[in-house]
Amino acid sequence: MEILLAQSAGFCFGVKRATNMALEAAEKYEHICSHGPIIHSPQMVEKLAAHGVDVVSDIEDIPAGAVIIRSHGVSADELHQILDKDLDIVDATCPFVKKAQDYAQQLSREGYSVVLAGEAEHPEVQGIISYGTETDVYTVASFEDAEKLPRMKKVGVVAQTTQSYDNFAQIVESCLSKCRELRVFNTICDATTVRQNEARSIAESVDLMLVIGGYNSANTSRLARICKEIQPETHHVETAAEINPEWFHDVDRVGITAGASTPQWIIDEVYEKVSQVGK
Amino acid sequence: MEILLAQSAGFCFGVKRATNMALEAAEKYEHICSHGPIIHSPQMVEKLAAHGVDVVSDIEDIPAGAVIIRSHGVSADELHQILDKDLDIVDATCPFVKKAQDYAQQLSREGYSVVLAGEAEHPEVQGIISYGTETDVYTVASFEDAEKLPRMKKVGVVAQTTQSYDNFAQIVESCLSKCRELRVFNTICDATTVRQNEARSIAESVDLMLVIGGYNSANTSRLARICKEIQPETHHVETAAEINPEWFHDVDRVGITAGASTPQWIIDEVYEKVSQVGK
Repeated sequence: MEILLAQSAGFCFGVKRATNMALEAAEKYEHICSHGPIIHSPQMVEKLAAHGVDVVSDIEDIPAGAVIIRSHGVSADELHQILDKDLDIVDATCPFVKKAQDYAQQLSREGYSVVLAGEAEHPEVQGIISYGTETDVYTVASFEDAEKLPRMKKVGVVAQTTQSYDNFAQIVESCLSKCRELRVFNTICDATTVRQNEARSIAESVDLMLVIGGYNSANTSRLARICKEIQPETHHVETAAEINPEWFHDVDRVGITAGASTPQWIIDEVYEKVSQVGK
Repeated sequence: MEILLAQSAGFCFGVKRATNMALEAAEKYEHICSHGPIIHSPQMVEKLAAHGVDVVSDIEDIPAGAVIIRSHGVSADELHQILDKDLDIVDATCPFVKKAQDYAQQLSREGYSVVLAGEAEHPEVQGIISYGTETDVYTVASFEDAEKLPRMKKVGVVAQTTQSYDNFAQIVESCLSKCRELRVFNTICDATTVRQNEARSIAESVDLMLVIGGYNSANTSRLARICKEIQPETHHVETAAEINPEWFHDVDRVGITAGASTPQWIIDEVYEKVSQVGK
Protein backbone atom coordinates (compact mmCIF):
# COMPACT_ATOMS: atom_id res chain seq x y z
CA MET A 1 0.00 0.00 0.00
CA GLU A 2 1.35 3.37 -0.99
CA ILE A 3 1.03 6.32 1.40
CA LEU A 4 1.03 9.93 0.16
CA LEU A 5 1.68 12.37 2.97
CA ALA A 6 0.97 16.02 2.18
CA GLN A 7 4.03 18.25 2.53
CA SER A 8 1.77 21.01 3.82
CA ALA A 9 0.21 18.87 6.56
CA GLY A 10 0.30 20.29 10.08
CA PHE A 11 1.27 23.46 11.91
CA CYS A 12 1.11 26.72 10.03
CA PHE A 13 3.26 29.72 10.87
CA GLY A 14 0.73 31.25 13.28
CA VAL A 15 0.14 28.03 15.19
CA LYS A 16 3.84 27.26 15.46
CA ARG A 17 4.45 30.78 16.73
CA ALA A 18 1.60 30.56 19.26
CA THR A 19 2.67 27.21 20.73
CA ASN A 20 6.29 28.37 20.96
CA MET A 21 5.22 31.57 22.71
CA ALA A 22 3.11 29.52 25.11
CA LEU A 23 5.97 27.16 25.92
CA GLU A 24 8.35 30.09 26.50
CA ALA A 25 5.77 31.83 28.69
CA ALA A 26 5.30 28.63 30.69
CA GLU A 27 9.01 28.75 31.56
CA LYS A 28 8.92 32.44 32.46
CA TYR A 29 5.78 32.56 34.60
CA GLU A 30 5.00 30.29 37.52
CA HIS A 31 1.27 30.49 36.80
CA ILE A 32 -0.03 31.26 33.37
CA CYS A 33 -3.22 30.51 31.55
CA SER A 34 -4.54 30.90 28.05
CA HIS A 35 -7.85 32.49 27.20
CA GLY A 36 -9.52 29.47 25.61
CA PRO A 37 -7.49 26.67 24.04
CA ILE A 38 -4.39 28.16 22.38
CA ILE A 39 -4.97 26.15 19.24
CA HIS A 40 -7.73 23.73 18.27
CA SER A 41 -5.80 20.58 19.14
CA PRO A 42 -6.89 18.90 22.41
CA GLN A 43 -3.65 16.90 22.39
CA MET A 44 -1.46 20.01 22.14
CA VAL A 45 -3.53 21.75 24.82
CA GLU A 46 -2.98 18.73 27.08
CA LYS A 47 0.76 18.90 26.43
CA LEU A 48 0.82 22.60 27.30
CA ALA A 49 -1.17 21.87 30.47
CA ALA A 50 1.62 19.50 31.48
CA HIS A 51 3.96 22.52 31.18
CA GLY A 52 1.65 24.53 33.44
CA VAL A 53 -0.50 26.38 30.89
CA ASP A 54 -4.11 26.24 32.09
CA VAL A 55 -7.05 26.97 29.85
CA VAL A 56 -9.56 29.48 31.20
CA SER A 57 -12.65 30.26 29.11
CA ASP A 58 -14.04 33.18 31.07
CA ILE A 59 -11.83 36.24 31.48
CA GLU A 60 -13.33 36.86 34.94
CA ASP A 61 -11.86 33.56 36.08
CA ILE A 62 -8.29 34.39 35.02
CA PRO A 63 -6.16 34.69 38.19
CA ALA A 64 -3.68 37.52 38.68
CA GLY A 65 -0.46 37.03 36.72
CA ALA A 66 -0.17 36.43 33.00
CA VAL A 67 -2.49 35.46 30.17
CA ILE A 68 -1.80 34.15 26.69
CA ILE A 69 -4.01 35.48 23.92
CA ARG A 70 -4.40 32.50 21.62
CA SER A 71 -3.71 32.34 17.88
CA HIS A 72 -7.36 33.16 17.02
CA GLY A 73 -7.09 36.51 18.78
CA VAL A 74 -9.67 38.13 21.03
CA SER A 75 -12.56 40.47 20.48
CA ALA A 76 -12.24 44.19 21.24
CA ASP A 77 -14.42 43.71 24.35
CA GLU A 78 -12.38 40.80 25.61
CA LEU A 79 -9.19 42.78 25.08
CA HIS A 80 -10.59 45.62 27.19
CA GLN A 81 -11.58 43.18 29.93
CA ILE A 82 -8.08 41.70 29.92
CA LEU A 83 -6.49 45.15 30.03
CA ASP A 84 -8.76 46.10 32.94
CA LYS A 85 -7.46 43.13 34.93
CA ASP A 86 -3.92 44.46 34.64
CA LEU A 87 -2.48 41.10 33.59
CA ASP A 88 0.80 40.49 31.78
CA ILE A 89 -0.21 39.74 28.20
CA VAL A 90 1.50 37.26 25.90
CA ASP A 91 -0.17 38.09 22.61
CA ALA A 92 0.00 34.98 20.42
CA THR A 93 -2.63 36.28 17.98
CA CYS A 94 -1.64 35.09 14.51
CA PRO A 95 -0.29 38.13 12.61
CA PHE A 96 -2.58 37.24 9.68
CA VAL A 97 -5.61 37.27 11.98
CA LYS A 98 -4.44 40.60 13.36
CA LYS A 99 -4.36 41.96 9.81
CA ALA A 100 -7.95 40.83 9.21
CA GLN A 101 -8.97 42.59 12.47
CA ASP A 102 -7.21 45.77 11.32
CA TYR A 103 -8.88 45.70 7.89
CA ALA A 104 -12.34 45.17 9.43
CA GLN A 105 -11.72 48.20 11.63
CA GLN A 106 -10.41 50.30 8.72
CA LEU A 107 -13.35 49.41 6.45
CA SER A 108 -15.86 50.20 9.16
CA ARG A 109 -14.18 53.53 9.93
CA GLU A 110 -14.26 54.41 6.22
CA GLY A 111 -18.02 53.81 6.10
CA TYR A 112 -18.17 50.39 4.46
CA SER A 113 -20.70 47.82 5.61
CA VAL A 114 -18.42 44.93 6.56
CA VAL A 115 -18.99 41.38 5.32
CA LEU A 116 -16.85 38.69 6.89
CA ALA A 117 -16.65 35.44 4.95
CA GLY A 118 -16.42 32.89 7.75
CA GLU A 119 -18.13 30.81 10.40
CA ALA A 120 -20.09 32.90 12.90
CA GLU A 121 -19.28 30.61 15.85
CA HIS A 122 -15.52 30.62 15.36
CA PRO A 123 -13.51 32.64 17.91
CA GLU A 124 -11.32 34.12 15.15
CA VAL A 125 -14.47 35.39 13.39
CA GLN A 126 -15.98 36.77 16.58
CA GLY A 127 -12.71 38.58 17.18
CA ILE A 128 -12.47 40.07 13.69
CA ILE A 129 -16.05 41.37 13.52
CA SER A 130 -15.77 43.00 16.94
CA TYR A 131 -13.40 45.58 15.41
CA GLY A 132 -15.97 46.80 12.87
CA THR A 133 -18.19 48.79 15.19
CA GLU A 134 -18.95 51.90 13.18
CA THR A 135 -21.10 50.31 10.46
CA ASP A 136 -23.22 47.21 9.93
CA VAL A 137 -21.20 44.00 10.11
CA TYR A 138 -22.38 40.67 8.70
CA THR A 139 -20.85 37.22 8.97
CA VAL A 140 -21.70 34.94 6.06
CA ALA A 141 -20.58 31.35 5.64
CA SER A 142 -21.64 30.84 2.03
CA PHE A 143 -22.93 32.37 -1.20
CA GLU A 144 -26.47 31.48 -0.08
CA ASP A 145 -25.95 33.41 3.17
CA ALA A 146 -24.57 36.38 1.26
CA GLU A 147 -27.51 36.41 -1.12
CA LYS A 148 -29.78 37.18 1.86
CA LEU A 149 -27.90 40.41 2.66
CA PRO A 150 -29.70 43.70 1.94
CA ARG A 151 -28.61 46.17 -0.73
CA MET A 152 -25.85 48.37 0.64
CA LYS A 153 -24.03 51.50 -0.48
CA LYS A 154 -20.41 50.47 0.10
CA VAL A 155 -19.40 46.94 1.02
CA GLY A 156 -16.04 45.86 2.46
CA VAL A 157 -15.21 42.15 2.52
CA VAL A 158 -12.62 40.34 4.62
CA ALA A 159 -12.15 36.60 5.18
CA GLN A 160 -11.58 34.22 8.04
CA THR A 161 -7.93 33.32 7.40
CA THR A 162 -8.75 29.64 6.85
CA GLN A 163 -11.56 30.16 4.31
CA SER A 164 -11.50 28.21 1.07
CA TYR A 165 -10.78 30.62 -1.78
CA ASP A 166 -13.68 29.37 -3.91
CA ASN A 167 -16.20 29.98 -1.14
CA PHE A 168 -14.72 33.44 -0.53
CA ALA A 169 -14.85 34.28 -4.25
CA GLN A 170 -18.52 33.29 -4.40
CA ILE A 171 -19.31 35.50 -1.40
CA VAL A 172 -17.49 38.41 -3.09
CA GLU A 173 -19.53 37.76 -6.27
CA SER A 174 -22.74 38.04 -4.28
CA CYS A 175 -21.59 41.22 -2.52
CA LEU A 176 -20.73 42.82 -5.88
CA SER A 177 -24.37 42.48 -6.91
CA LYS A 178 -25.50 44.32 -3.76
CA CYS A 179 -23.62 47.59 -4.01
CA ARG A 180 -22.00 50.22 -6.20
CA GLU A 181 -18.67 50.19 -4.38
CA LEU A 182 -16.93 47.06 -3.21
CA ARG A 183 -13.64 46.77 -1.40
CA VAL A 184 -12.10 43.40 -0.74
CA PHE A 185 -9.14 42.46 1.42
CA ASN A 186 -8.30 38.84 0.72
CA THR A 187 -7.10 37.85 4.18
CA ILE A 188 -7.02 34.13 3.46
CA CYS A 189 -3.71 32.77 4.67
CA ASP A 190 -1.54 31.39 1.85
CA ALA A 191 -0.76 28.33 3.95
CA THR A 192 -4.48 27.51 3.94
CA THR A 193 -4.73 27.74 0.17
CA VAL A 194 -1.56 25.68 -0.34
CA ARG A 195 -2.81 23.03 2.11
CA GLN A 196 -6.25 22.87 0.50
CA ASN A 197 -4.86 22.66 -3.03
CA GLU A 198 -2.42 19.91 -2.09
CA ALA A 199 -5.22 18.02 -0.30
CA ARG A 200 -7.40 18.26 -3.42
CA SER A 201 -4.64 16.96 -5.66
CA ILE A 202 -3.84 14.02 -3.31
CA ALA A 203 -7.54 13.16 -2.79
CA GLU A 204 -7.92 12.85 -6.56
CA SER A 205 -5.27 10.14 -6.80
CA VAL A 206 -5.95 7.89 -3.80
CA ASP A 207 -8.52 5.26 -2.74
CA LEU A 208 -8.73 6.51 0.84
CA MET A 209 -8.00 9.89 2.41
CA LEU A 210 -7.21 10.64 6.05
CA VAL A 211 -7.49 14.16 7.41
CA ILE A 212 -5.96 14.56 10.87
CA GLY A 213 -6.88 17.29 13.34
CA GLY A 214 -9.05 18.42 16.23
CA TYR A 215 -12.79 18.00 15.78
CA ASN A 216 -13.07 21.58 17.04
CA SER A 217 -10.67 22.79 14.34
CA ALA A 218 -12.57 24.66 11.61
CA ASN A 219 -9.75 24.45 9.11
CA THR A 220 -9.38 20.68 9.59
CA SER A 221 -13.13 20.15 9.19
CA ARG A 222 -13.08 22.25 6.03
CA LEU A 223 -10.14 20.25 4.71
CA ALA A 224 -12.06 17.03 5.38
CA ARG A 225 -15.12 18.42 3.56
CA ILE A 226 -13.02 19.42 0.55
CA CYS A 227 -11.45 15.93 0.37
CA LYS A 228 -14.78 14.15 0.86
CA GLU A 229 -16.23 15.95 -2.16
CA ILE A 230 -13.45 14.45 -4.28
CA GLN A 231 -12.94 11.11 -2.50
CA PRO A 232 -16.01 9.93 -0.53
CA GLU A 233 -13.73 7.53 1.36
CA THR A 234 -12.36 10.35 3.50
CA HIS A 235 -12.04 10.04 7.29
CA HIS A 236 -11.45 12.89 9.69
CA VAL A 237 -9.49 11.52 12.69
CA GLU A 238 -8.06 13.25 15.71
CA THR A 239 -5.47 10.62 16.66
CA ALA A 240 -4.00 7.31 15.43
CA ALA A 241 -6.17 5.43 17.92
CA GLU A 242 -9.24 6.12 15.79
CA ILE A 243 -7.88 4.42 12.71
CA ASN A 244 -9.92 1.35 11.78
CA PRO A 245 -7.91 -1.32 9.90
CA GLU A 246 -11.09 -2.37 8.08
CA TRP A 247 -11.04 0.89 6.10
CA PHE A 248 -8.00 -0.40 4.20
CA HIS A 249 -9.44 -3.48 2.46
CA ASP A 250 -8.77 -3.24 -1.27
CA VAL A 251 -7.00 0.09 -0.82
CA ASP A 252 -3.83 0.61 -2.86
CA ARG A 253 -3.11 4.26 -2.19
CA VAL A 254 -3.78 6.25 0.97
CA GLY A 255 -3.51 10.01 1.22
CA ILE A 256 -2.79 11.81 4.50
CA THR A 257 -3.06 15.47 5.32
CA ALA A 258 -3.57 17.44 8.53
CA GLY A 259 -5.01 20.77 9.67
CA ALA A 260 -3.00 23.83 10.65
CA SER A 261 -3.27 23.00 14.34
CA THR A 262 -2.31 19.33 14.19
CA PRO A 263 1.00 18.59 16.00
CA GLN A 264 3.71 16.74 14.07
CA TRP A 265 3.82 13.87 16.56
CA ILE A 266 0.18 13.00 15.87
CA ILE A 267 0.82 13.02 12.10
CA ASP A 268 3.81 10.72 12.70
CA GLU A 269 1.71 8.31 14.80
CA VAL A 270 -1.00 8.15 12.13
CA TYR A 271 1.59 7.58 9.40
CA GLU A 272 3.16 4.78 11.46
CA LYS A 273 -0.19 3.12 12.17
CA VAL A 274 -1.24 3.24 8.50
CA SER A 275 2.15 1.77 7.50
CA GLN A 276 1.60 -1.12 9.90
CA VAL A 277 -1.94 -1.76 8.62
CA GLY A 278 -0.73 -1.67 5.02
CA LYS A 279 1.96 -4.32 5.49
CA MET B 1 -48.47 38.83 -35.61
CA GLU B 2 -47.84 40.20 -32.16
CA ILE B 3 -45.17 42.86 -31.64
CA LEU B 4 -43.47 43.37 -28.26
CA LEU B 5 -41.72 46.72 -28.08
CA ALA B 6 -39.30 47.14 -25.15
CA GLN B 7 -40.24 50.03 -22.85
CA SER B 8 -36.54 50.72 -22.34
CA ALA B 9 -35.76 50.94 -26.06
CA GLY B 10 -33.94 54.06 -27.22
CA PHE B 11 -32.33 57.17 -25.81
CA CYS B 12 -30.88 56.99 -22.32
CA PHE B 13 -30.54 60.00 -20.03
CA GLY B 14 -27.00 60.84 -21.21
CA VAL B 15 -27.82 60.64 -24.90
CA LYS B 16 -31.01 62.66 -24.52
CA ARG B 17 -29.05 65.29 -22.60
CA ALA B 18 -26.23 65.39 -25.18
CA THR B 19 -28.55 65.77 -28.20
CA ASN B 20 -30.56 68.48 -26.44
CA MET B 21 -27.38 70.35 -25.54
CA ALA B 22 -26.22 70.06 -29.16
CA LEU B 23 -29.51 71.40 -30.52
CA GLU B 24 -29.45 74.31 -28.06
CA ALA B 25 -25.83 75.07 -28.94
CA ALA B 26 -26.70 74.99 -32.64
CA GLU B 27 -29.19 77.82 -32.00
CA LYS B 28 -26.74 79.82 -29.93
CA TYR B 29 -23.61 79.59 -32.11
CA GLU B 30 -23.44 80.39 -35.77
CA HIS B 31 -20.71 77.78 -36.29
CA ILE B 32 -20.33 74.85 -33.98
CA CYS B 33 -18.86 71.41 -34.33
CA SER B 34 -18.72 68.27 -32.26
CA HIS B 35 -15.54 66.37 -31.55
CA GLY B 36 -16.50 63.10 -33.24
CA PRO B 37 -20.13 62.06 -33.68
CA ILE B 38 -22.12 63.24 -30.63
CA ILE B 39 -23.80 59.87 -30.29
CA HIS B 40 -23.38 56.63 -32.24
CA SER B 41 -26.40 57.14 -34.50
CA PRO B 42 -25.53 58.21 -38.07
CA GLN B 43 -29.16 59.31 -38.55
CA MET B 44 -29.10 61.62 -35.52
CA VAL B 45 -25.72 63.00 -36.54
CA GLU B 46 -27.19 63.77 -39.96
CA LYS B 47 -30.13 65.55 -38.35
CA LEU B 48 -27.78 67.63 -36.20
CA ALA B 49 -25.72 68.47 -39.29
CA ALA B 50 -28.90 69.90 -40.83
CA HIS B 51 -29.04 72.21 -37.78
CA GLY B 52 -25.45 73.27 -38.40
CA VAL B 53 -23.52 70.91 -36.11
CA ASP B 54 -20.48 69.64 -38.02
CA VAL B 55 -18.51 66.60 -36.97
CA VAL B 56 -14.74 67.09 -36.71
CA SER B 57 -12.57 64.13 -35.75
CA ASP B 58 -9.26 65.84 -35.29
CA ILE B 59 -9.06 68.60 -32.69
CA GLU B 60 -6.50 70.44 -34.83
CA ASP B 61 -9.17 70.86 -37.50
CA ILE B 62 -11.72 72.49 -35.20
CA PRO B 63 -12.22 76.10 -36.33
CA ALA B 64 -12.35 78.98 -33.86
CA GLY B 65 -15.67 79.25 -32.03
CA ALA B 66 -17.38 76.50 -30.07
CA VAL B 67 -17.02 72.75 -29.70
CA ILE B 68 -19.34 70.14 -28.26
CA ILE B 69 -17.74 67.38 -26.20
CA ARG B 70 -19.86 64.36 -27.02
CA SER B 71 -21.61 62.01 -24.58
CA HIS B 72 -18.63 59.59 -24.54
CA GLY B 73 -16.36 62.29 -23.13
CA VAL B 74 -12.78 63.05 -24.15
CA SER B 75 -9.40 61.90 -22.96
CA ALA B 76 -7.30 64.06 -20.66
CA ASP B 77 -4.95 64.85 -23.59
CA GLU B 78 -7.80 65.82 -25.88
CA LEU B 79 -9.26 68.05 -23.19
CA HIS B 80 -5.92 69.84 -22.87
CA GLN B 81 -5.74 70.29 -26.64
CA ILE B 82 -9.26 71.74 -26.66
CA LEU B 83 -8.45 74.08 -23.77
CA ASP B 84 -5.29 75.21 -25.57
CA LYS B 85 -7.38 76.25 -28.58
CA ASP B 86 -9.40 78.60 -26.40
CA LEU B 87 -12.75 77.38 -27.74
CA ASP B 88 -16.15 77.75 -26.11
CA ILE B 89 -16.88 74.31 -24.70
CA VAL B 90 -20.31 72.69 -24.55
CA ASP B 91 -19.55 69.67 -22.36
CA ALA B 92 -22.13 66.99 -23.19
CA THR B 93 -20.12 64.22 -21.49
CA CYS B 94 -22.62 61.83 -19.89
CA PRO B 95 -22.50 62.41 -16.11
CA PHE B 96 -22.14 58.64 -15.59
CA VAL B 97 -19.12 58.54 -17.90
CA LYS B 98 -17.67 61.50 -16.01
CA LYS B 99 -18.03 59.51 -12.78
CA ALA B 100 -16.13 56.56 -14.28
CA GLN B 101 -13.36 58.98 -15.34
CA ASP B 102 -13.22 60.39 -11.80
CA TYR B 103 -13.03 56.91 -10.22
CA ALA B 104 -10.24 55.83 -12.60
CA GLN B 105 -8.31 58.94 -11.58
CA GLN B 106 -8.97 58.39 -7.86
CA LEU B 107 -7.94 54.71 -7.98
CA SER B 108 -4.75 55.52 -9.84
CA ARG B 109 -3.89 58.33 -7.42
CA GLU B 110 -4.43 55.94 -4.50
CA GLY B 111 -1.96 53.46 -5.97
CA TYR B 112 -4.30 50.89 -7.48
CA SER B 113 -3.51 49.27 -10.82
CA VAL B 114 -6.62 50.16 -12.80
CA VAL B 115 -8.59 47.58 -14.77
CA LEU B 116 -11.31 48.93 -17.05
CA ALA B 117 -13.90 46.40 -18.12
CA GLY B 118 -14.71 47.57 -21.64
CA GLU B 119 -13.80 47.72 -25.31
CA ALA B 120 -10.35 49.17 -25.95
CA GLU B 121 -11.39 50.90 -29.18
CA HIS B 122 -14.41 52.71 -27.76
CA PRO B 123 -13.99 56.50 -27.29
CA GLU B 124 -15.63 56.33 -23.85
CA VAL B 125 -13.05 53.74 -22.77
CA GLN B 126 -10.13 55.69 -24.20
CA GLY B 127 -11.39 58.70 -22.32
CA ILE B 128 -11.77 56.90 -18.97
CA ILE B 129 -8.36 55.21 -19.00
CA SER B 130 -6.61 58.46 -19.87
CA TYR B 131 -7.38 59.72 -16.35
CA GLY B 132 -5.49 56.87 -14.64
CA THR B 133 -1.96 58.01 -15.32
CA GLU B 134 -0.21 57.30 -12.05
CA THR B 135 -0.31 53.49 -12.15
CA ASP B 136 -0.65 50.70 -14.71
CA VAL B 137 -3.98 50.77 -16.52
CA TYR B 138 -5.41 47.79 -18.40
CA THR B 139 -8.49 47.55 -20.61
CA VAL B 140 -10.02 44.09 -20.70
CA ALA B 141 -13.07 43.06 -22.70
CA SER B 142 -13.65 39.64 -21.14
CA PHE B 143 -12.78 37.15 -18.41
CA GLU B 144 -10.25 35.58 -20.81
CA ASP B 145 -8.55 38.96 -21.29
CA ALA B 146 -8.47 39.52 -17.53
CA GLU B 147 -6.94 36.10 -16.92
CA LYS B 148 -3.88 37.25 -18.89
CA LEU B 149 -3.19 40.15 -16.49
CA PRO B 150 -0.15 39.86 -14.22
CA ARG B 151 -0.39 39.49 -10.44
CA MET B 152 -0.78 42.92 -8.88
CA LYS B 153 -0.72 44.33 -5.36
CA LYS B 154 -3.88 46.44 -5.38
CA VAL B 155 -6.40 46.36 -8.20
CA GLY B 156 -9.14 48.91 -8.87
CA VAL B 157 -11.88 48.03 -11.34
CA VAL B 158 -14.26 50.35 -13.19
CA ALA B 159 -16.59 49.59 -16.08
CA GLN B 160 -17.53 51.10 -19.40
CA THR B 161 -21.01 52.39 -18.57
CA THR B 162 -22.67 50.11 -21.14
CA GLN B 163 -21.01 46.85 -20.00
CA SER B 164 -23.16 43.80 -19.39
CA TYR B 165 -23.19 43.08 -15.65
CA ASP B 166 -22.35 39.38 -16.11
CA ASN B 167 -19.25 40.16 -18.14
CA PHE B 168 -18.20 42.78 -15.60
CA ALA B 169 -18.72 40.34 -12.70
CA GLN B 170 -16.55 37.74 -14.42
CA ILE B 171 -13.78 40.29 -14.93
CA VAL B 172 -14.01 41.23 -11.23
CA GLU B 173 -13.79 37.52 -10.34
CA SER B 174 -10.58 37.20 -12.34
CA CYS B 175 -9.10 40.35 -10.79
CA LEU B 176 -9.85 39.03 -7.29
CA SER B 177 -7.59 36.06 -7.98
CA LYS B 178 -4.72 38.37 -8.96
CA CYS B 179 -4.33 40.53 -5.88
CA ARG B 180 -4.73 40.90 -2.13
CA GLU B 181 -6.72 44.10 -2.28
CA LEU B 182 -9.49 44.76 -4.76
CA ARG B 183 -11.61 47.85 -5.09
CA VAL B 184 -14.52 47.94 -7.47
CA PHE B 185 -16.65 50.84 -8.62
CA ASN B 186 -19.58 49.44 -10.54
CA THR B 187 -20.02 52.27 -13.03
CA ILE B 188 -22.43 50.38 -15.26
CA CYS B 189 -25.36 52.66 -16.00
CA ASP B 190 -28.66 51.37 -14.59
CA ALA B 191 -30.37 52.16 -17.87
CA THR B 192 -28.01 49.69 -19.58
CA THR B 193 -28.85 46.91 -17.13
CA VAL B 194 -32.58 47.59 -17.35
CA ARG B 195 -32.43 47.61 -21.16
CA GLN B 196 -30.39 44.38 -21.29
CA ASN B 197 -32.65 42.58 -18.81
CA GLU B 198 -35.79 43.61 -20.66
CA ALA B 199 -34.22 42.54 -23.98
CA ARG B 200 -33.37 39.12 -22.49
CA SER B 201 -36.87 38.63 -21.21
CA ILE B 202 -38.48 39.64 -24.54
CA ALA B 203 -36.01 37.53 -26.59
CA GLU B 204 -37.04 34.46 -24.56
CA SER B 205 -40.68 34.79 -25.58
CA VAL B 206 -40.54 35.68 -29.29
CA ASP B 207 -39.79 33.94 -32.61
CA LEU B 208 -37.82 36.86 -34.03
CA MET B 209 -35.98 39.72 -32.36
CA LEU B 210 -35.02 43.09 -33.87
CA VAL B 211 -32.37 45.27 -32.27
CA ILE B 212 -32.25 48.78 -33.70
CA GLY B 213 -29.24 51.08 -33.55
CA GLY B 214 -26.04 52.35 -35.17
CA TYR B 215 -23.60 49.68 -36.31
CA ASN B 216 -20.94 51.81 -34.59
CA SER B 217 -22.88 51.74 -31.33
CA ALA B 218 -21.19 49.40 -28.81
CA ASN B 219 -24.23 49.16 -26.57
CA THR B 220 -26.52 48.26 -29.48
CA SER B 221 -24.10 45.60 -30.72
CA ARG B 222 -23.89 44.15 -27.19
CA LEU B 223 -27.68 44.16 -26.96
CA ALA B 224 -27.86 42.27 -30.27
CA ARG B 225 -25.29 39.74 -29.02
CA ILE B 226 -27.23 39.17 -25.79
CA CYS B 227 -30.47 38.60 -27.74
CA LYS B 228 -28.82 36.34 -30.31
CA GLU B 229 -27.60 34.01 -27.54
CA ILE B 230 -31.21 33.53 -26.48
CA GLN B 231 -32.98 33.82 -29.85
CA PRO B 232 -30.72 32.98 -32.83
CA GLU B 233 -33.26 34.74 -35.08
CA THR B 234 -32.03 38.16 -33.98
CA HIS B 235 -31.31 40.92 -36.51
CA HIS B 236 -29.37 44.12 -35.78
CA VAL B 237 -30.74 46.86 -38.07
CA GLU B 238 -29.95 50.54 -38.29
CA THR B 239 -33.13 51.69 -40.03
CA ALA B 240 -36.51 50.38 -41.18
CA ALA B 241 -35.18 50.19 -44.75
CA GLU B 242 -33.11 47.13 -43.82
CA ILE B 243 -36.06 45.06 -42.73
CA ASN B 244 -36.57 42.04 -44.94
CA PRO B 245 -40.18 40.81 -45.10
CA GLU B 246 -38.92 37.24 -45.66
CA TRP B 247 -37.70 37.12 -42.06
CA PHE B 248 -41.31 37.02 -40.89
CA HIS B 249 -42.52 33.75 -42.47
CA ASP B 250 -44.02 31.54 -39.74
CA VAL B 251 -43.32 34.20 -37.10
CA ASP B 252 -46.07 34.77 -34.52
CA ARG B 253 -44.32 37.08 -32.09
CA VAL B 254 -41.68 39.73 -32.83
CA GLY B 255 -39.64 41.54 -30.18
CA ILE B 256 -38.17 44.99 -30.75
CA THR B 257 -35.61 46.85 -28.69
CA ALA B 258 -33.10 49.61 -29.45
CA GLY B 259 -29.77 50.88 -28.18
CA ALA B 260 -29.24 53.94 -26.00
CA SER B 261 -28.38 56.11 -29.00
CA THR B 262 -31.28 55.13 -31.25
CA PRO B 263 -33.66 58.06 -31.95
CA GLN B 264 -37.36 57.54 -31.29
CA TRP B 265 -38.37 58.28 -34.89
CA ILE B 266 -36.28 55.32 -36.15
CA ILE B 267 -37.90 53.02 -33.58
CA ASP B 268 -41.32 54.28 -34.73
CA GLU B 269 -40.45 53.63 -38.38
CA VAL B 270 -39.33 50.09 -37.64
CA TYR B 271 -42.45 49.41 -35.58
CA GLU B 272 -44.62 50.70 -38.42
CA LYS B 273 -42.82 48.62 -41.06
CA VAL B 274 -43.07 45.44 -38.97
CA SER B 275 -46.80 46.12 -38.40
CA GLN B 276 -47.30 46.39 -42.17
CA VAL B 277 -45.38 43.17 -42.86
CA GLY B 278 -47.35 41.35 -40.21
CA LYS B 279 -50.74 42.26 -41.61
